[in-house]
Amino acid sequence: MLRSCAARLHALGALRGLRGGARPPARSPGPARVSRRSLFLEADFHKDSSLPKPSWSKDMRLLFDQFMKKCEDGSWTRLPFYNYKSIQNVHDSIVFIHGRLPTTAKLVDKEQLSQAQIFTETFKDGLGFEYVMFYNDVEKRTVCLFQGGPHLQGMPGFLHGGAVATMIDATVGMSAMKAEGLVMTANLNINFKRPVPLCSVVVINSQLDKTEGRKLFISCDVRSVDETTLYSEATSLFIKLDPKKNS
Amino acid sequence: MLRSCAARLHALGALRGLRGGARPPARSPGPARVSRRSLFLEADFHKDSSLPKPSWSKDMRLLFDQFMKKCEDGSWTRLPFYNYKSIQNVHDSIVFIHGRLPTTAKLVDKEQLSQAQIFTETFKDGLGFEYVMFYNDVEKRTVCLFQGGPHLQGMPGFLHGGAVATMIDATVGMSAMKAEGLVMTANLNINFKRPVPLCSVVVINSQLDKTEGRKLFISCDVRSVDETTLYSEATSLFIKLDPKKNS
Repeated sequence: MLRSCAARLHALGALRGLRGGARPPARSPGPARVSRRSLFLEADFHKDSSLPKPSWSKDMRLLFDQFMKKCEDGSWTRLPFYNYKSIQNVHDSIVFIHGRLPTTAKLVDKEQLSQAQIFTETFKDGLGFEYVMFYNDVEKRTVCLFQGGPHLQGMPGFLHGGAVATMIDATVGMSAMKAEGLVMTANLNINFKRPVPLCSVVVINSQLDKTEGRKLFISCDVRSVDETTLYSEATSLFIKLDPKKNS
Repeated sequence: MLRSCAARLHALGALRGLRGGARPPARSPGPARVSRRSLFLEADFHKDSSLPKPSWSKDMRLLFDQFMKKCEDGSWTRLPFYNYKSIQNVHDSIVFIHGRLPTTAKLVDKEQLSQAQIFTETFKDGLGFEYVMFYNDVEKRTVCLFQGGPHLQGMPGFLHGGAVATMIDATVGMSAMKAEGLVMTANLNINFKRPVPLCSVVVINSQLDKTEGRKLFISCDVRSVDETTLYSEATSLFIKLDPKKNS
């Protein structure tokens, strides 16, 4: 089942951008053509990008150490992040996804695909999205420590709202996948309270609020390190893919 | 007044990331300290990044030509996009914004600021956000032609949801600013219908639906070039800054 692939896929970051509120078509041509095995993308396990780097600020490092301490009793787990690189298997995945959610646009070809990079991993160390996530299975909670670099600027000196939305999306998406496996985002609703200073660290705290059938409702807030400044709040809706259609 | 600065600021892309649903504090220490003149950032007028490039696909170029034709009778206007580079004036703007929406985080310093780049302009040609916007003043409508490059990948072969959110944010923000000058985003609510294929072109069509006092309600949809595929729909709320507080 696709669900059984989800844990490994999300570790590869592959599911982070999966979008589509529409229910998968009842007669999807995709799933039957792609084996479960082909969806297991090959990762570069030599580089876990969620580990501390010289570009991390003191705040980022301190928070990381605090959460690593929480991991010692097993209540929290750090979520590693590996890139994926197997073009053949990635191409199979594209065909598979398109089978479930077809579009009229031409799909990316293998030559273009060789240039593809995960959005949040595109930037050089310290310039873009620096982040690490931790998960608490009992509380169904994902916390993302996020340091937004100088290449994510919107208004002078502050993060672009799209960069904030990107990390909110990634964090609530991780909560959904950790809870229910393979899911698709249907809605993301963000209230922006105040701008996030460039190069500062924020804490994105997301929580699975409830499930109703295949629907997952996840909320989050974005706060300063000392928790006194609320930058944004968001709610989201995810749809769990029907496991019967993925076997 | 700040409002009078908006037209030039938005042309520089400077306002694109301004966030904050909170009403500016009644007694803001910022406005009195920063002159109107210092908010006029210096742009690099030699490079308008919304003009056609070799990296644009055939679809992108065709749509661009169609809209340029619509511009001939004056009903539509192409919106140029210039970068800004004056660090001194940018720094003044940061202090000004922080005066209205203070945070507990340390603001970016001048050394970090020298590395800052507008999020959507960070990527090399063809790899990231390729876009151009057109505005119809009578209809209060902004259309963005957007080609998402291979460095914006989420799920293999498809755009990251955060990249889609970024361009939605930029487009509805432009509609708000063209209609009412200096504004702040309060809410962005996106329904994701299906994933956007990497390197394809989409049309983001935004519309000012109504105004209620200082509130602006703007909606948009994201469709394929042939308009048959609906990728996303969004609504947004912007707050117009009180001009009395900006004089």
